[in-house]
This record gives sequence, C-alpha cells and structure tokens, in this order.
Amino acid sequence: MTFANVGTLGAIPGKRDELVAILTARNDALREVGCMLYEVGTNNEDPDTVYVVELWESADAHQASLQLQEVRDAIESARPILSGEFGGFQFDVQGSPIRD
Amino acid sequence: MTFANVGTLGAIPGKRDELVAILTARNDALREVGCMLYEVGTNNEDPDTVYVVELWESADAHQASLQLQEVRDAIESARPILSGEFGGFQFDVQGSPIRD
Repeated sequence: MTFANVGTLGAIPGKRDELVAILTARNDALREVGCMLYEVGTNNEDPDTVYVVELWESADAHQASLQLQEVRDAIESARPILSGEFGGFQFDVQGSPIRD
Repeated sequence: MTFANVGTLGAIPGKRDELVAILTARNDALREVGCMLYEVGTNNEDPDTVYVVELWESADAHQASLQLQEVRDAIESARPILSGEFGGFQFDVQGSPIRD
C-alpha cells in the first residue's frame, strides 16, 4: 500500500534555502528503495520552514530509506541548520479522484 | 510553479470511510484544470481523520478547481459528515531529489 510521508522542517533563520538545497540534491537511491514522489518546497508566509511531501511504495520502503548512506549524510549536513521544529503526518493512501 | 496543498479533514466518528469515498470519486475535471496529483488516505492511529496530498500546476489552478461543479457537489455531500476540524499547509515546490 502506498505510504505518504508529509513533513515540515524548521530551519535556522536565513538557512531555509540551504536546507532546500540539501533535500533536493539528486539521490537516485531513493527511487531504488521505493520512493515514488519526493517534493520539497517553501511558503514565504513561513520563511523558516521547508515542506516535504513523499510517496513510498510502502511504509517499509520509507523506513529502509533512512538507512541509506546518502540519506544519513544529508541528515548530518542538515543537522547544524535545523531549528528542531518538526511537523507533519503519515498516512496510507486509499485512492484518488484522478487515477484508477 | 507547482503548488502543493496538503490537508487533514476531520470526519464525524464512524464516517471517515464515507468521506474517503466522496474524495476519491472519479473526477477527471480536476486533471483538466491542472491537478497533477491527488492522493487521499487514512492513518488508523487517527480514525476520524482523512488526509489529502495534492499537487497543482499552480496556485491558481488549485483555486480554479474550487469553482468546479463536481467539487462544489462533493463539498456539499461531505458537509454533513465533517467534524469541522481541518489542518494542513500549502507550499510552492522548489525541487526534488528524484527528478530533474
């Protein structure tokens, strides 16, 4: 079952775009472990937050991705510019009005 | 610029799946006005909430969709089973680690 992971990551003021750059660095290994969609974005009404929307082939695929060296490296390089504020939610996809 | 709309909709206890059915009823008009992705789901840790993740060609496309008769009809049919609790966020997509 497709698994959705939606999140908000707080960046230290002025570091939001640097965090976006880390999260959008090309990483094809994510697709290999079952990432179907990974979109990163911003909303200028909240200048210190980065938003992510991810779809995975399963919750297990998402979990497995956290063991990838590239993901661990990204988390390490992001750590100094994270504010520590996190949000979001996860869910199992049940369907869509625009596809079968 | 791709626009993401992420939301949580509270359902009256016991009506979550009925709300999922309304939100996943096929509606190709959404794609015609610029909907790129519309995924609806649940998380059993929160049995009265329905989650949606949407990607649109633009914020304007999302806004235009709210004028579609099919969408208005869906909102009307959902109204009686909504608890009134809403959440989520919107953002402009800046990039992705798994596509150009």
